[in-house]
Parts: sequence; structure tokens; C-alpha cells
Amino acid sequence: MQLHPIAYVNSPYKQKFAIPRQPNLVREAEGELLFEPAYADANALRGLEGFSHLWLIFAFHANAAGWSATVTPPRLGGGTHVGVFASRSPYRPNPLGLSVVEFAGIEQRGDRLSLRVRGLDLLDGTPIYDIKPYLPYADAIVDASAAYAAQAPAACEVRFSEAARHALTQLQDSHPRLEAFITAVLAQDPRPAQHVRHPDTERVHGMFLLDFNIRWRVQHAVAWVLSIEPRTDTTPDHAHA
Amino acid sequence: MQLHPIAYVNSPYKQKFAIPRQPNLVREAEGELLFEPAYADANALRGLEGFSHLWLIFAFHANAAGWSATVTPPRLGGGTHVGVFASRSPYRPNPLGLSVVEFAGIEQRGDRLSLRVRGLDLLDGTPIYDIKPYLPYADAIVDASAAYAAQAPAACEVRFSEAARHALTQLQDSHPRLEAFITAVLAQDPRPAQHVRHPDTERVHGMFLLDFNIRWRVQHAVAWVLSIEPRTDTTPDHAHA
Repeated sequence: MQLHPIAYVNSPYKQKFAIPRQPNLVREAEGELLFEPAYADANALRGLEGFSHLWLIFAFHANAAGWSATVTPPRLGGGTHVGVFASRSPYRPNPLGLSVVEFAGIEQRGDRLSLRVRGLDLLDGTPIYDIKPYLPYADAIVDASAAYAAQAPAACEVRFSEAARHALTQLQDSHPRLEAFITAVLAQDPRPAQHVRHPDTERVHGMFLLDFNIRWRVQHAVAWVLSIEPRTDTTPDHAHA
Repeated sequence: MQLHPIAYVNSPYKQKFAIPRQPNLVREAEGELLFEPAYADANALRGLEGFSHLWLIFAFHANAAGWSATVTPPRLGGGTHVGVFASRSPYRPNPLGLSVVEFAGIEQRGDRLSLRVRGLDLLDGTPIYDIKPYLPYADAIVDASAAYAAQAPAACEVRFSEAARHALTQLQDSHPRLEAFITAVLAQDPRPAQHVRHPDTERVHGMFLLDFNIRWRVQHAVAWVLSIEPRTDTTPDHAHA
């Protein structure tokens, strides 16, 4: 079966590191789907504004090819194997992803058709293959049980250093929601599982968010934001460090 | 993007007509996914038994090719156009479907690996491309709003004629849940939208379920099951009539 991207994502997440592990955990993450010319027909979105939430079917496009029968979910500490079909791991036989996002609007800019969404958990540039309305009577199964992933991961506390707070003040006009966004992302504790298991309170982590390079450190279950700097290169100082 | 089927569905639904329009509405619909040899590795399902529900990503394989920007959902009476991305219509740019089903067990029969499910709404022979665990904390959005599809379609009453009741008695040992299954399917009123709008109380409808050809008539909002006969041909008498 051959699929064709209908749209590509413009996302504040510029690298896989630090993307929340499920959608809708960071509601502040806003982005848009820009439709490919062959699908840029506003009629195809008629009535979408009546739905608060949407499913996106996308490709994990930044993965090297390959999958194996078992994976090691981060929330199990990275050391326990479960079957790939019992996980939402991106390394799957068919690398399809499923995300629920909030509908935030439709924009026509010249001949570009854009669908704005919130609660996005997709990497910038992700190809989208389908959009479906969320139907709560069929899709919302509140009594479903879910083994090792029954609850959202625990959120950790986030605090800002003086330098980081100064940067936020400078950026208040251009990026009024930056503090809320950084807080929500770091509250998910995006550190790799081995760093959570074997914490190093001196290690500085880095990530790109929007056009910023953000550095932080985790000490005693508090994520301390150390600096917020304009992004100047293409690799954050300590990404995946 | 090229996809490869990981499994094919064995379903009691032998034709598109009469399949409930969303999964999980007919819990009695049991079936299995039979894995393709390249994916028939029980390790890939390890831990799946901890999840009560699963997502299936599949292809609407029985559709002729083609899509258009708007569709006419049956629940709007078949006369109102909405955008294809504001619907769960099978006629989509990429004909991918999304279904939530109940986990019912894993079976290894010789070298055949089977995943049993309940609440299935897929046509027999449907190719499956991915299986993901249902995560209630991320997937169950109970306060989502959904325009024209906010509620499950109203169920209609189902009664059995004497002949149909006699057939059920004969089949009690081999198919103990047949009555419940037929009842649940017909309660969804699978008649095409134009027949619901312009009802003909004399018209006999037919459908294949399991190995049976089932005929019924709708009179004053009651679906009357007229006959339940072993399936002998490949086209039910009045399918899509």
C-alpha cells in the first residue's frame, strides 16, 4: 500500500529530544499542518470546526529504518522489554504514529491552506497521512486498563534561574507564552531513561524549542532552567547528552 | 511511503453492508487478526494482555479507488456535505482506518499466531498495518465535542419472527451468542441513509453475518428478523437493496 503525505507539520519541536511522549500532555505546544497543493482544498475541512479534537496519522519520519519484536519503554526505566505492539514506540514494522490534538483554526494564506492545532507532540516536518475527527462516544474509553502505562508520567517541578528569568522578561512581548511552554515540556522530564535511573545533578541538558536553545539541570526532582538563548547553530550544546 | 500488512482479519462481517459505523458499538462481534509469517513473532505481543483495548490501523481495502473533498455522512441523512477530514468516511486520500477493539487473547496454533479481539467493526479480510495499546490517559478525552457525531446513533428495537426464533433454537449449541450478535448489529439500523429517510415497511433487507444469510424488515422503528438461513451463495438476496 502506497501512502502520499497530505500535509507537513510546522512544530515548535525542532528535534526528537524533549518531545512529550504522548500528545495532549503539553497543551501549550501549538503548530500547524500545511497542506500539500494536491490536498489544499478548504472543502475537505468543512465542518471540522465543530470538533474539539482530531486524530492525526503520521509517519515517524526521522527514524532510521528498522524495528525489532521488543522495545524498552522509557517509563519502565529503559531496562524492561515489551512487545512492539504493546508499546507506542516509533520503531514499528510500519512506522505509523497516532496523535490526538486540539483543533485551533483553519487559515487560508494565499494558496496555502493551514490547519492550526494545540497539544501537538510531533517533530517539525512530520508528514501527515490522515486527519479524522475525534468521536468521544466511540474513541473515549475511560475504563480502559493499560498495564504499565495506566497513568500519565508524573510531572516534575520546574524553576527558572535568574538568567533564564531575565531572558523571559526580554521575550515577554514576542513570546508571551514561552514560560508556560518550557515549564510544560520540562515537567514531563524528557531526560533519557538511563539519566533518570542514574541521575547526575551536575549534568546540563539542552534542547531546541521554537527558535531557542534551552539548557537545564535536574537536581532533587526539580528541573532548573539555566539559560534561554536564541538558536544560532543546528545542534544544541547538549542534546542527547 | 510503502506499507506492508502485518496481519489480516478474520471477521464475522462478510460484506460492508451491516458493519456498524464505529467500533465498540457491537461488543459481540468477535474476530481475530492472523499475523503474516514475517510478523508472526509472539514476542512482538509481549505485555499486550495488560491492555484492555487496542488501536488497529487498517486499510479500507474493499473500496474502489477515489475520494472527493466532501462526503455525505449517513447520520446526517445522506444529504449533507461535510469535508472528508471532518468525517470517518472510508473514501479518503489515504484509505486508512482507525478502530479501537477489545483485547480477547493470543493464540499460537502451530506456526500461526492469532490475536483475538471483540467489538470488531472490520470486514473479513481487512489488512492490518499497525496495532497500538490504548492509553486512557492520552486517548480518552471525555469532554471532546463532536458536532454532528456527538452521540452514538440511536439504537432501534429488534424482534424475531417465529421462523427466526426457531432457527435460533436449532443453532443454540453451535452459536449460543447468535441472537445477541444479530440484535446488536440490527439495533444500529444498518439500512442505507436513503431508506431511513424514505422508509418502505415492506422492503426486505438481507445481510451475511458469520455463515448466515439474515433477512429483516423495519416497521415502525422495529427491526423484525424474518429468517436466519445457512449461507449458500456469495450474494445475500437483498444486500444493498
